[in-house]
Amino acid sequence: MKEEFKSYFKKLLGEENAHFDTLHQRAYSYDATRNHYLPDGVLFPRNEEDISAILKYCNDRQIIIIPRGSGSGFTGGALAINGGLILSFEKHMNQILEIDLENLVAVVQPGVINIALQKEVAKYGLFYPPDPASMEYSSLGGNVSENAGGMRAAKYGITKDYVMALRAVLPNGDVIRAGKRTIKDVAGYNLAGILIASEGSLAVLSELTLKLIAMPKFKKTAFATFASVKDAMNAVYKSLASGVNPVSMEFLDNLSIRAVEEKFHKGLNVEAGAILICDVDGNVKESVEEDLRRLREYFLEAGALEFKIAQNETEVADIWFARRNCSQSIAMYGTLKLNEDITVPRSKLPELLEGIEQVSQKYGFKIPCFGHTGDGNVHTNVMVKDKDDKEQVKKGYEAVEEIFKLAVGLGGTLSGEHGIGISKAPFMNLAFSEAEMNLMRNIKKAFDSNNILNPFKMGL
Amino acid sequence: MKEEFKSYFKKLLGEENAHFDTLHQRAYSYDATRNHYLPDGVLFPRNEEDISAILKYCNDRQIIIIPRGSGSGFTGGALAINGGLILSFEKHMNQILEIDLENLVAVVQPGVINIALQKEVAKYGLFYPPDPASMEYSSLGGNVSENAGGMRAAKYGITKDYVMALRAVLPNGDVIRAGKRTIKDVAGYNLAGILIASEGSLAVLSELTLKLIAMPKFKKTAFATFASVKDAMNAVYKSLASGVNPVSMEFLDNLSIRAVEEKFHKGLNVEAGAILICDVDGNVKESVEEDLRRLREYFLEAGALEFKIAQNETEVADIWFARRNCSQSIAMYGTLKLNEDITVPRSKLPELLEGIEQVSQKYGFKIPCFGHTGDGNVHTNVMVKDKDDKEQVKKGYEAVEEIFKLAVGLGGTLSGEHGIGISKAPFMNLAFSEAEMNLMRNIKKAFDSNNILNPFKMGL
Repeated sequence: MKEEFKSYFKKLLGEENAHFDTLHQRAYSYDATRNHYLPDGVLFPRNEEDISAILKYCNDRQIIIIPRGSGSGFTGGALAINGGLILSFEKHMNQILEIDLENLVAVVQPGVINIALQKEVAKYGLFYPPDPASMEYSSLGGNVSENAGGMRAAKYGITKDYVMALRAVLPNGDVIRAGKRTIKDVAGYNLAGILIASEGSLAVLSELTLKLIAMPKFKKTAFATFASVKDAMNAVYKSLASGVNPVSMEFLDNLSIRAVEEKFHKGLNVEAGAILICDVDGNVKESVEEDLRRLREYFLEAGALEFKIAQNETEVADIWFARRNCSQSIAMYGTLKLNEDITVPRSKLPELLEGIEQVSQKYGFKIPCFGHTGDGNVHTNVMVKDKDDKEQVKKGYEAVEEIFKLAVGLGGTLSGEHGIGISKAPFMNLAFSEAEMNLMRNIKKAFDSNNILNPFKMGL
Repeated sequence: MKEEFKSYFKKLLGEENAHFDTLHQRAYSYDATRNHYLPDGVLFPRNEEDISAILKYCNDRQIIIIPRGSGSGFTGGALAINGGLILSFEKHMNQILEIDLENLVAVVQPGVINIALQKEVAKYGLFYPPDPASMEYSSLGGNVSENAGGMRAAKYGITKDYVMALRAVLPNGDVIRAGKRTIKDVAGYNLAGILIASEGSLAVLSELTLKLIAMPKFKKTAFATFASVKDAMNAVYKSLASGVNPVSMEFLDNLSIRAVEEKFHKGLNVEAGAILICDVDGNVKESVEEDLRRLREYFLEAGALEFKIAQNETEVADIWFARRNCSQSIAMYGTLKLNEDITVPRSKLPELLEGIEQVSQKYGFKIPCFGHTGDGNVHTNVMVKDKDDKEQVKKGYEAVEEIFKLAVGLGGTLSGEHGIGISKAPFMNLAFSEAEMNLMRNIKKAFDSNNILNPFKMGL
C-alpha cells in the first residue's frame, strides 16, 4: 500500500483508527474457515461519513475494501483474498441507536453483536428472533450481509424477515436509504431486498432498522427419539405439513448422538437413529399445549420410540446442550471437518439423508448430520481422519461436491445460512446457470462499477 | 408497428394469440387509473418459451413490452404510455400448476387470479394470506410485481413475505430461477427480492412459487367506535406496541362512516370520529379470546366509546361490508377522487391524520380516510367536487403533494401497496435522493440494457 494512501487514512480517521502494521494485518487475516489472507491494512470508521470518505477515495484509486463484521463466517466472506483494506465496525460502529417501543423496531449500527440486541430488547419484553449459532459473537451487519438463519427459522423466519430498512454507502461514496419503518413500502425497487445476503459486495451497510416482536409468554421443549433417520425425517415434514408450528425442530443423527454422549454423558440413547428437539411457544398456555399434543400425535404416528416434554429447566438445558455441542463433539471422527449447510424442501429430507448415507459408504467417510430440519437445513460434516493426508482430503471434497449435487437435485440450495464467499464459489455452477451468473455480475456492476467491494467472491 | 413484426408474432403464437386490431388495442389501453394509452398490439404467450422468444425478438429490435396482469393497478403500471406490446397472461398462463401439501407451497402461473388460489388452497385447509382489495380480479403476477398488500398485513405481512421462488425471463430471452422451495437459501444474490415490486420493469415473471400456511381454526371480529380520529390512532399503535397481534386493524374516519351509512344504512354511528375493525385468529379458542380481551382493554384505555365483538356471521358481514364499501360510498363528496395509499410508522398515525385535516382545511377539500391502520397504511381521498373544473383539479393535486410530503416527513412512504407507475412518478424526488434514483436506474440497466421492459415508469 502506497505511503500516500496510508497517510490519507491516518489523517482522515486518526492514527488510532488506521493500521497497516503486521499485528493488525494478522489479527484481521482469518475467519471461521481457518484460511489466512493478509490484508493491506485495517480501518475503523467512526461513522457513516467516514465510510463514505473511505469508499470515495478507494473507488477513485481502485483500492479493494472488505467490510468485516466479527469474522465468524464459514465461507470466507470477510477475507482479503487479494489484499485490500479491511473495514471493521467493531471499534466504533457497534451501538444500539434506538429501541422504538411504539413501532417495535430497533435501529443499530452494523457492529452490534446479535446477542447484545436480543438481551437489550428482552428488557422491554421484546424479541429479535434470528439466532445463528454464532449469535454470541457475530455482528448484525454480518448477519444481514449473509442473511443469517438459526434455530428458530421454522416459525420465525430468518434475518431477511426482520430487516425493515437499511442505510448503506455505495462504492462511490453516495449514501442510500432502503426501506422504511413500515410494514408496507412499495415505492421504488426493493433495494434492501438485494442488499440482504449480498456478502458485502454491493454496498457497505451503515445502519440497520430491524423488526422486533413481542416475546411470547409461554414456551416448552419436547424431544423424541426415533429408530431411524428416515422415521425422524418423515416425522419432520409430515408434522409441519399438518400445520403445527413449532419454533424449532432440530435434529441429531446417530453419529452425532454418540459423539455428544461420549464427550458429555447426558444420558442420550446411543442406539437411537435420530433425536428431534422441538421448542413451541405462544401467548396462552392452551396454544402451547395444543402444539405439543399435535407434535406428539404426529411423531408417534411416524414411529417415534418415545416423546418427552422437558419437565424443568435442567431437562430443557440438557437436551439443548446436546444439540448445541454436536459441532465440537464430532471432532472425534476426524481431524478435518468439511461442514456444509445444504437445505432442501422438507419433504425431501428423507431422500437427502438416505443419499448422504450412500455418499458416506461410497467414500468411506463418517458423515454425521445435525441441524435445523424444521426448515430443511441440514449441517453435513464429512469427517476426514487425517487432515494431512492429501489424498483423503481430496476425496473429502469430492464427497462434499456429491452432497451439493444431491441437495441441488432435490430442489435444494448450496447454502441455507453460511453464504458462498470463497468456500462454495467453485460450486456455484452446480446451482446457477450462466444466465443467472451473468445477471448477478451485472447487478454487482450496477452497484460497484470498479469492482472494489469484496471482489472475487461468490463466483462472480 | 411494422408488418414484418406483426407477421413474426402471428407465426410464433398463432393468429389467435397476436392481435393488432383496434378492438384489442382499446381493450388493453386502460387500468384502474382510468387513463388510456393505446398499445401497438396485444400478445398472449402460451408458455415460458413464448415469452422468451418474444422478449429476445423485441430486445433485438428495441420494441417495448408491457407485462400486464388484470389491469387493476391504481398507478398505471400496465399502461402502454409510449406504445409497445402488451404481454397478457389472462388467456393461457393462468393455471395453478401444483399445490405441494408436503411443503406447503403453491406453484402458479402469473395469470392466476388471487382469489382462485385462496379458494383452491382452502380446500386443503391451507391459507394464502395476501388479500389486496382487488383480490377478486387481480392476478398473482401483478400482485408480486406490485408487492400487493391487503387487510391482513398487520399479522401476516404482504406479498413479498409469501414469495419463495420465481421463474422469470430477462429482456434478452434468458430464463432465470430465483429462490427455492425452502425457507433458507442464501446462495447468490436475492434475485427474487429485487424482482418483487419491480413493476414489470426488470424481467417478465413466468412462474411463482408461493408459501402457504395452515388455515387458523378460530376467528373473531371486533369493532370499536371512538369520539375522535386521534383517540382511534392512539388505540392502534398503543395496542400493537403492547404485543397484541390481530390479523387486521382497519379504520374508517367520520366522513367515511357518514358516506357508508348514507348509502347503505348499516346502523353505523354517524357521530363517531372513527371506527376500528379488528379480526383476530388462532388455533385455540383461548388465544383468540386473549387477543380480544387485550384489544378491549387497550381500546377502552385509549378512550373507545364502545367495543363490540361480532356475535354472528351477519354482524361480521355487516361491519366488513361497511369497510369494504368505503371507497365507492365516498363518491358522494365529489366527482373526482384522488386516492393515495401513503403509509407511516404506526406511532405517527395521529400526526398524519391531524396533518391531513389541516390540508383539508387549507385547500377546502373533503378528504375522507380509511384503510389498514394496523400496518400504518391509510387510504387518503382528496375529493374534488367537479372533475371538469381545471382550477379545482390542479388544487386537488397540490393537496395530494402536500399529503405526500407530510407522509415522507413522518418517515413514511409514497406508496404502501399501489406502486409508483406513472401516477406517483412525479413525486419520487420527494422520497428518494438523486443517488438512490441513479442506483435504481443502474439496476434497471443491469437487467434491461435496451430499456424495452415497461420503460419510463417509476420515475426511472
